[in-house]
Amino acid sequence: MQPMAAGERLIDAANLRAFVGRLFGGLGVPGVESLELAECITDADLRGVSSHGVVRVPWYVKDIRRGYMRPVVEVSTEADSGPLVLLDGHDSIGHLLAKRAMATAMRRATRFAVGVVGVRRSSHFGAAAYYAAMAAAEDQIGMVLTNGGAVLAPWGGRQKLLGNTPLAVALPAMEEPPVILDSAQTVVAHGKLTYAKERGATTIPLGWALDSSGQPTEDIDEALRGLLMPIGEHKGYAMAFVFDCLCGLLLNAGVGEAIRTDEHPGVGPGHLFLAFDVGFFGPVEVFKRRLDQRIRQIRASPRSAGVERIYFPGEIEHESRVRRLREGIPLPVGLLRNLNDLAREIQVAELGG
Amino acid sequence: MQPMAAGERLIDAANLRAFVGRLFGGLGVPGVESLELAECITDADLRGVSSHGVVRVPWYVKDIRRGYMRPVVEVSTEADSGPLVLLDGHDSIGHLLAKRAMATAMRRATRFAVGVVGVRRSSHFGAAAYYAAMAAAEDQIGMVLTNGGAVLAPWGGRQKLLGNTPLAVALPAMEEPPVILDSAQTVVAHGKLTYAKERGATTIPLGWALDSSGQPTEDIDEALRGLLMPIGEHKGYAMAFVFDCLCGLLLNAGVGEAIRTDEHPGVGPGHLFLAFDVGFFGPVEVFKRRLDQRIRQIRASPRSAGVERIYFPGEIEHESRVRRLREGIPLPVGLLRNLNDLAREIQVAELGG
Repeated sequence: MQPMAAGERLIDAANLRAFVGRLFGGLGVPGVESLELAECITDADLRGVSSHGVVRVPWYVKDIRRGYMRPVVEVSTEADSGPLVLLDGHDSIGHLLAKRAMATAMRRATRFAVGVVGVRRSSHFGAAAYYAAMAAAEDQIGMVLTNGGAVLAPWGGRQKLLGNTPLAVALPAMEEPPVILDSAQTVVAHGKLTYAKERGATTIPLGWALDSSGQPTEDIDEALRGLLMPIGEHKGYAMAFVFDCLCGLLLNAGVGEAIRTDEHPGVGPGHLFLAFDVGFFGPVEVFKRRLDQRIRQIRASPRSAGVERIYFPGEIEHESRVRRLREGIPLPVGLLRNLNDLAREIQVAELGG
Repeated sequence: MQPMAAGERLIDAANLRAFVGRLFGGLGVPGVESLELAECITDADLRGVSSHGVVRVPWYVKDIRRGYMRPVVEVSTEADSGPLVLLDGHDSIGHLLAKRAMATAMRRATRFAVGVVGVRRSSHFGAAAYYAAMAAAEDQIGMVLTNGGAVLAPWGGRQKLLGNTPLAVALPAMEEPPVILDSAQTVVAHGKLTYAKERGATTIPLGWALDSSGQPTEDIDEALRGLLMPIGEHKGYAMAFVFDCLCGLLLNAGVGEAIRTDEHPGVGPGHLFLAFDVGFFGPVEVFKRRLDQRIRQIRASPRSAGVERIYFPGEIEHESRVRRLREGIPLPVGLLRNLNDLAREIQVAELGG
C-alpha cells in the first residue's frame, strides 16, 4: 500500500473521473467533453502531480462561472500552412483546446513528418505532460509549451513578470513506459512552499526562493512573500522569458503579467504543440528498442551513496499511475468536502464510494 | 576600455577571423568554407563566450588531422517531407553542416511556415546561438538543439552518461538586439571550475558540483574529479536525457557516452534546427515592436538590492560583441602562442597585428 497522510482518503480513479465529469456536465460542458476534461484532470492525480489534479476543480468551476473559461468549446482556424496551424480558442477550456490541438498536430505530422499547432486565447490546460503523451502513444514525439500567469521575476529583478512556463516532451519506448519530461523553470513549485508551511516548517533550503527584495532566503514566510528561484539562476529566467515570448508574443496571446490569473482578469495564455513522426526518421521499432536500452542502461548505472534507484523522466509518475489505478488516489478530506459542496451547489450526485 | 586580465592581448576581430580562416584553409577546408568556419568560431569570442571560440581551434585542428572532422563538407539528404529534412553529415565540420542546415530550415519555413532540419553524423558545431541567430536576422524564430559528449550523470547516479545538451532560441526584435537563449543543463560549465582552479581557488559554492561518489561538494579538487550539477537537480537531468534522445536516438546519431569526444573515438552528435516564419503568425512589425516593449519593460522593472542592471537573454553577449568589434578581443598570450605554433606547422602566415 502507498503511504497515506492523516486526513486523506483513497478514492477510486474511475469514480473520481465520473464525479468530475458530472460536475462539469452540470456547468454546461457537453457530455463527451466533460468526460475528456475529467480524464485530463484526474490523470494528473493518478500520476501524483496533484498540483494539477482535482485540487484545481474549484478554481476551474469559478472560472467557468465568471466567464474566464467557456464551457462549450469554440475554436477557429486563423491560419493553416499544412504542417503549421494557428487556432484561436476564444477563451474555451484549455484542456479541451489542447487535446484537439495536439490531435491536429499529430495528424499533420502523419502527413508532413512534423506538425505544429499554436493556440491563442486559451485558458489553463492542466498538466502539459498529458498532451505530449498523446503523441508518444501513437509512435510520435510530442512537445508542448505553454505560458501562464506571472510568478517569476527577471534575474536581478524583484517584480513578478514571467510565468513558470513548462516544457513537456514525450518519447515512445517499446517495453518501457514512455519517457516524459514536464518541467517548469523554478527550483520548486509554489505549492511546495505552502505545503511545507502547512506542516509547520519555518525554514526552507537555500536556493528555493528569494525574499521580496530579491535576496536568497531560508525563512519560509519571507519566501512566501517573495519570489521563487529560477533553476540555474539566469538560465531558468532566460528559458521562461523565451518560452513566454513563443507562446505569448508569437501566437498573439497574453504575455507574462498580462495573462489572466485567479487574482486578476487579463488575456488567456498561448500553447504550442509539436509532433514528430518517428517513422519518418527510420524504423519505429529501432527507435523504441534503442530507447528501452537507453533507459535500462541509465537505470543500471552506478548510484550515488544513499540512492536506492535511478529513475528516467516520467518513471515515478508512471509507477504512481499503476499503483493508484489499483489502490485509489489519496485525497485530503478537506478537498473532498469542498468538491461535494460544489456538487450540491451544481445539483449533481456527490462523489460515491 | 574593457577590463583585461594580466597575460592577455587585444586582437582585432577581422584579423583573428582571417587568421583562423588561413589555418583551416591550410588544412584543406575550401576557401569560402574556411572563412565561414572562422566567422562561426570568432563570433563566439566576440560575444564573450570564449569557451566556444578560438580556444577550441587546436582541438578542431587535431580532429581534422585524425579524421574526426572531414575538411570538405559532404552531406546527403536521407529524407525530405517538405517542411522536414534529414541530413547525414558524414563527419564533416559541424559548424559548416549547421550553417547549411539552418539555412535549409529557414527556406522551408518561408514555404511551410515551419522548417525543421535534423543532421546526423555531425561533429562539434561551436555555439548553438550562432545558428539560431541566423533565423532571427531574417525575421524568423530559430531553435537549435544538439547533443554532445557525456559530462553529466543521471540524477541519483555517478557515471557520466549524458551530454550537456544546449538549447538555443533566437527571436527578432525591432530596435533592440535579438533575444537569444543559449543554455545547457549544468549550473556552471566545466571551464568555470578549471578557470577558478587556475586562479588559485580551493573552494566553490555549494550547488555547482558533486564529488565522484555523487555527494554535493565545496572542494574544487573533488569537484574537478567529480560531476557537474544539473540545473534544478532532476529537472536539468530530465532535459539533458530528453534532448539527447531527440538529437541522438531520433536522428540515429550518437547518444550520451557513445559520442566521440577529445578523449575517445565514437559516433558524431546530432543536431536539430527549427525555424518558424514570424510573418505567418501575424504582421512581423507587430511582433518585433511587442518584443521591444517587453524587453524595455523588463529592463525598467524594479531591481534587487545591489543589482545595477537587468539584462534580457543575449544582451550581455550583444554588448560584448559591440565592444570587442571596436576594441578587439582579449586573448591569453599562451593561447596566441599555441595558435601561432599551429600556423607555423601548417605553414600559413602567423596572426598579425
